[in-house]
Amino acid sequence: MRRPTLTLLAASLALATGLASATDTATTIPQAAVKTAEQLRDKAMKDNTAYAVVESLTTEVGPRMAGSPADLRAREWAVAKFKELGYDKVYTETVTYPLWERRSEHAEIVGPFAQPLTLLALGYSAATPKGGLTAEVVKFDSLDALQKADPAKVKGKIVYVPTHMKPHKDGSDYGMGSAVRVGGPVIASKMGAAAFLLRSAGTDEHSRTPHTGVTGFRDPKDAIPAAALSLPDADQLERVLARGKPVKLKLDIDCGITGMYTGANVIGEITGKTHPEQVVAIGGHLDSWDPGTGAIDDGAGVAIAMAAGKLIKDLPQRPDRTIRVIAFANEEMGLWGGRAYADQHAGDVAKHVLGTESDFGAGKIWRMTASVKPEARGAIEQIAKVIQPIGVEYVADKPGGGGSDLSQMHLKGMAALTLTQDGTDYFDYHHTANDTLDKIKPADLAQNVAVYAAFSYMAAQANGDFGSAPDAFKNDGASD
Amino acid sequence: MRRPTLTLLAASLALATGLASATDTATTIPQAAVKTAEQLRDKAMKDNTAYAVVESLTTEVGPRMAGSPADLRAREWAVAKFKELGYDKVYTETVTYPLWERRSEHAEIVGPFAQPLTLLALGYSAATPKGGLTAEVVKFDSLDALQKADPAKVKGKIVYVPTHMKPHKDGSDYGMGSAVRVGGPVIASKMGAAAFLLRSAGTDEHSRTPHTGVTGFRDPKDAIPAAALSLPDADQLERVLARGKPVKLKLDIDCGITGMYTGANVIGEITGKTHPEQVVAIGGHLDSWDPGTGAIDDGAGVAIAMAAGKLIKDLPQRPDRTIRVIAFANEEMGLWGGRAYADQHAGDVAKHVLGTESDFGAGKIWRMTASVKPEARGAIEQIAKVIQPIGVEYVADKPGGGGSDLSQMHLKGMAALTLTQDGTDYFDYHHTANDTLDKIKPADLAQNVAVYAAFSYMAAQANGDFGSAPDAFKNDGASD
Repeated sequence: MRRPTLTLLAASLALATGLASATDTATTIPQAAVKTAEQLRDKAMKDNTAYAVVESLTTEVGPRMAGSPADLRAREWAVAKFKELGYDKVYTETVTYPLWERRSEHAEIVGPFAQPLTLLALGYSAATPKGGLTAEVVKFDSLDALQKADPAKVKGKIVYVPTHMKPHKDGSDYGMGSAVRVGGPVIASKMGAAAFLLRSAGTDEHSRTPHTGVTGFRDPKDAIPAAALSLPDADQLERVLARGKPVKLKLDIDCGITGMYTGANVIGEITGKTHPEQVVAIGGHLDSWDPGTGAIDDGAGVAIAMAAGKLIKDLPQRPDRTIRVIAFANEEMGLWGGRAYADQHAGDVAKHVLGTESDFGAGKIWRMTASVKPEARGAIEQIAKVIQPIGVEYVADKPGGGGSDLSQMHLKGMAALTLTQDGTDYFDYHHTANDTLDKIKPADLAQNVAVYAAFSYMAAQANGDFGSAPDAFKNDGASD
Repeated sequence: MRRPTLTLLAASLALATGLASATDTATTIPQAAVKTAEQLRDKAMKDNTAYAVVESLTTEVGPRMAGSPADLRAREWAVAKFKELGYDKVYTETVTYPLWERRSEHAEIVGPFAQPLTLLALGYSAATPKGGLTAEVVKFDSLDALQKADPAKVKGKIVYVPTHMKPHKDGSDYGMGSAVRVGGPVIASKMGAAAFLLRSAGTDEHSRTPHTGVTGFRDPKDAIPAAALSLPDADQLERVLARGKPVKLKLDIDCGITGMYTGANVIGEITGKTHPEQVVAIGGHLDSWDPGTGAIDDGAGVAIAMAAGKLIKDLPQRPDRTIRVIAFANEEMGLWGGRAYADQHAGDVAKHVLGTESDFGAGKIWRMTASVKPEARGAIEQIAKVIQPIGVEYVADKPGGGGSDLSQMHLKGMAALTLTQDGTDYFDYHHTANDTLDKIKPADLAQNVAVYAAFSYMAAQANGDFGSAPDAFKNDGASD
């Protein structure tokens, strides 16, 4: 375990919350609740509910891109699964967003060295003109180089920018990779490019599976065709470019926004017996990208949260507070479900006692960070003590962000944890056809459930709160 | 090194050739030639010619399915590359075969649990009717189970048979895997099936890349649609089938034989100075399957042989016998190039002193076996001694088969080696989109060239022959 010194801890807490040290109004977890949490943890480690849930979702629904025909089937699946697991209350809350549809994509090097290339269009990409678009490729080694380029050299060209992500336990290179995917198309469009390609934001150097993902296009009028080449295809293109002759590509991509779509967040609750209106919020997102079956992104997250709630429901009596499990709509195209939830529940921030979402695969959780009020640090230490034996290190001097969709509630003031999973191989599969059930290790998934069940139960039983209040964590750095 | 005892060796030689022990007419390699072979070996280990050749072929031609527009470009590339490398003589010999074309393929589970499946049509597969074919799937665990089934249960159905290959250094599970791919469609067709699917003959359990390959259909009238699911897709289909309800698939496959095509074997020679008419035959096949760029299958083989010949050419003087490097046409659809070569050179069997083809990837060679006359075993031992320091074990009690295309000359009586490469990961990529340049380790490729250059040179300088004569090795077991 790595723990900050007391001085560092105090300094960071002051920095994080702007408040002073803990007082005698400290939030604590009753000993009986700690003991029950330990039992939940041990039971979860041997329980296969989460694996059965993600097996069911990925098999019986499969790919479920937001707004696709499978979107409705996924919601029906989630409602039925919550009921089957014995949740007390199951309901939906609508989420409306633009429906972007992928229809087909094809790319080839026209010359020199004619050959096909494997790619996937990116979310909110525009289509190419009917019959395709043929243009010269121009390579920039970074977004910075693209931005500094003479616009005359970009205009009418297919801009290509490589990413070079390395695998890390915390997935930290994704910041760089996703910046190219999200920002690159927007910059290229502004500079008059005909289309934008990137070397996929992924780490699977030997796999012909491109990584799709959303772009930063917000208005369809600004969109140009934008797509990701698989890493070997990008390397092939670079070898052709390295011959030094002009390289022409033909792109034939059919996709686009067809209108607005109304889906829903699907919510299941284990109703609190003492403070039913106060909730511990956990979840994952129900939508997936279309090439895979969304096992690690994010069937696993939905399954972890559903299974954690179910284990708490199986206790002899209901917890004091409500456990709310949210299967979010359309995370992939820009946190639509999370933003809708935060808008709909903006007035309930203080009632969201603590929350976090699982959306980084199915690897073991190895780190916990928290954004809570100073008086609740002791309770977080109590949680840390229960999950430390199953491999989770508590790092007190970093904020907790709440995960992808629930980051939106944290931004409004909800106290939040971040439970970091081992993402060493996450970007081998993320947003690709290879995001399938076989990537999930049942034992690792069970460890996640153990952490979620233990912390959720302890938060539900805590004497006192964790500091949730409007704008309580505005400057904690979690959203950086 | 593992060596058979003398008794075992003598017994196996008698078994292999039907002849008695070596006499004083033994074939030997002169000491000067051994020394030069050692120098060739050491130079090859540091030489990057083969990697440059396979980089050139996979980049500048890319996928090159037999009879496709890239077939001609591949031949032009091979002629130019032989010339660039300084070969003395470059020519082609025509090869005519049916042109099978892949146009498109799509599969989906219609119900229950509608979702797409990833597959590739197999060589000589028929197309589905226009608009696709929808039928129920029936699974058989083996070809044996299929053959024993009530034909009424097969008629009109989509037959599905899984393969379960494990990775082995010698790739031995491919026998089982390819039997299902080659034989399964034929059996299913005879039993009245509507189509045939297999779980790909591959070892990449986590990759959505189906493995294509040829079927046993010899007459288009017998062909039905036949395709390979990726391993995760097959596992998904099996999970859906395990729910116990009838499962309907829709297959929409457009492919077929469009007529006859005449391509060519491309041949380069380093002309022997003493016996130019006597040849040491090495090579690889120039065609590849279409989803990848044919780096390990078989750009590597072509590159290894071309580079070995080039190193011998760079010696101060030409070898005694000719080094003939053959880039075979259309190996993939049934050894068309190899069979054409054997037919065209049937009268020259005795002039093919020794031969072998590289067609098992780019892993290090770890084993040599030989089918030669008993009087040449000592010369093979001399070759073994030169390549032993770079990791090659000589196993004297197994026959040598000559590799894929050159097996056809061996069947006619050419003395042959088998130089077995490490194929542990070969079937992760074989016949898939993932057969790309990044799978080749330059140092392993160089080791292959070292072995080919050393043995080819020693065979070219040998005093005496290796036993090539019409039907000399009919019963050596190499073709089993």
